[in-house]
Amino acid sequence: MADNRRFHLATRPEGTPDSDTFDLREVDRPEPAPGEALVRVLYLSVDPYMRDRMRAGESYAQPWEVGGPLYGGAVAEVVESNGAGFEPGATVVGNLPWAEYASADGSDLTPVDTGDLPVSTALGVLGMPGRTAYFGVREVVEPKADDTMVVSGAAGAVGSVAGQLGGLQGADVIGVAGSDEKVEWLTGDLGFTAGINYETEDVRERLGELADGVDAYYDNVGGPVTDAVWSHLNVDARVGICGQIALYNDEEIPTGPRKLGKLIETRARVEGLLVRDFAPRFREATAHLGELVARGDLGYRETVTEGIENAPDAFLGLFDGENVGKQVVKVAETSE
Amino acid sequence: MADNRRFHLATRPEGTPDSDTFDLREVDRPEPAPGEALVRVLYLSVDPYMRDRMRAGESYAQPWEVGGPLYGGAVAEVVESNGAGFEPGATVVGNLPWAEYASADGSDLTPVDTGDLPVSTALGVLGMPGRTAYFGVREVVEPKADDTMVVSGAAGAVGSVAGQLGGLQGADVIGVAGSDEKVEWLTGDLGFTAGINYETEDVRERLGELADGVDAYYDNVGGPVTDAVWSHLNVDARVGICGQIALYNDEEIPTGPRKLGKLIETRARVEGLLVRDFAPRFREATAHLGELVARGDLGYRETVTEGIENAPDAFLGLFDGENVGKQVVKVAETSE
Repeated sequence: MADNRRFHLATRPEGTPDSDTFDLREVDRPEPAPGEALVRVLYLSVDPYMRDRMRAGESYAQPWEVGGPLYGGAVAEVVESNGAGFEPGATVVGNLPWAEYASADGSDLTPVDTGDLPVSTALGVLGMPGRTAYFGVREVVEPKADDTMVVSGAAGAVGSVAGQLGGLQGADVIGVAGSDEKVEWLTGDLGFTAGINYETEDVRERLGELADGVDAYYDNVGGPVTDAVWSHLNVDARVGICGQIALYNDEEIPTGPRKLGKLIETRARVEGLLVRDFAPRFREATAHLGELVARGDLGYRETVTEGIENAPDAFLGLFDGENVGKQVVKVAETSE
Repeated sequence: MADNRRFHLATRPEGTPDSDTFDLREVDRPEPAPGEALVRVLYLSVDPYMRDRMRAGESYAQPWEVGGPLYGGAVAEVVESNGAGFEPGATVVGNLPWAEYASADGSDLTPVDTGDLPVSTALGVLGMPGRTAYFGVREVVEPKADDTMVVSGAAGAVGSVAGQLGGLQGADVIGVAGSDEKVEWLTGDLGFTAGINYETEDVRERLGELADGVDAYYDNVGGPVTDAVWSHLNVDARVGICGQIALYNDEEIPTGPRKLGKLIETRARVEGLLVRDFAPRFREATAHLGELVARGDLGYRETVTEGIENAPDAFLGLFDGENVGKQVVKVAETSE
């Protein structure tokens, strides 16, 4: 009995994915094997890194199989536990298929404890994006008091947290984002020192006006925005490469200015970042972020798309900057 | 009385400098002011970084003035001391004009003590290039036992030392150089594990055959050689950007593949390097390098061009890879 819907990868996209990339199948609810739980998905996370998993080539993540399900972070409710260690009704988070129902090994599920905050925050400010910002700021970009820190993709799930964490360290934080509405959110609500709308302003020129060079750069975007920031790097600047969303849909590695010479002039350090390297410290990060939100020191926003059938649109919107803050897909209501 | 010759910058070169860039003037020997010495230059150093000083734009070094003298590292003999703190006949090293005779403040001169080695080594293996290799390997590239380390410009003054220091740390060292003769020197005399002639071999392909990825990369060259190494970076690789000689003659920043995404995949760290940042530790470096040479653990070679009038050719030859090891210009014999 087909009482479940699940997205599969229809074909590997060339360039920007579109609706042909995704195949929503009517399938049966899985039977949980011993040690597994059957869960009902409440919220799906869509994230830029997923574009990379659609690719056959080498990457830091295993590619998705053509014909196989799409996976991602999801918040779900346990329906039935076959010795998975959870009570029915428990809210959990894990890596699950883009589906209404799924089975998962209990050891791959984590209880959701977002306190007074919506459970969807376990996919955003208190989830992978928040932790990515936390470790990237703390371990790689290291903004210090009176530093000028720039964040690209600043109104995204990671960038919005990273910038606020930089501000809490005493840095002057300049966010680069793609609309005036986003810039207003950053400076009006989140305490960013300034914002640049890269769609309407010359980032290089504006940065020159706003700051005396850049000491710390948290990069989620790459491409021309990063070129503009690069030309303002100060001596001993730190650059964290967290994402390169501007390039993810390119089939060939795109070209741009050769930037390494600037590192000799500045002795800047550039380092890539994957949050999973910090897995043993996830609890520390989540606890810290939760406290900051509770104290009112860390703001967040979610863009919620309703209905699993709209997950592809939510995903594709990331590349057009349609989300403010964390983009999630609401698949079902909690049963309470 | 014009009893001295000195090179001046005739004009700022566009693209590759040529003989029109340099103006050899007949000038008077300077009178040493109080605290200064008159010195007779024995050896001049020509180095790739000097191309940058011919440029008007921003850089880590002050640009040379059009019409003003060219400067560089030089070994010289003190002719006359006007309270400079040196005896006549003393051999010194310092930053001096490209000239036969020059005056210099005593505090800007350092006694040359190269032991049994020729005084010219104070410009090479025991001088700035040797120290650059020493600090770059030790503080930035950090090759460890069983790492695969790649060095570009491997047969140059810096690269040849950097590769050997990596080998002494237990790394397998692959040198990239521009001729079979150079590759033979690296592998036959200097103990490099392997060499690649980038003029006749596909660096990317050869690296794939020679090694299971690259853990440490000491880059003197930039451009396509660096692109090739980049695609082989391993997780947690370290890249030291010491020079980008392939790009120094470009008037506009050249374009190349956008490389930052690879840093997410590998979490590699890329850092620029300027030896002058380590000035307080120069003595440590020189002593260490001197011991290694004395023990026979560190080989070196010098390419000596005779006559100050040939200094421009010696400099320009750097960009065509005409030197093996350190390129110096012999201006005069020692008086002994």
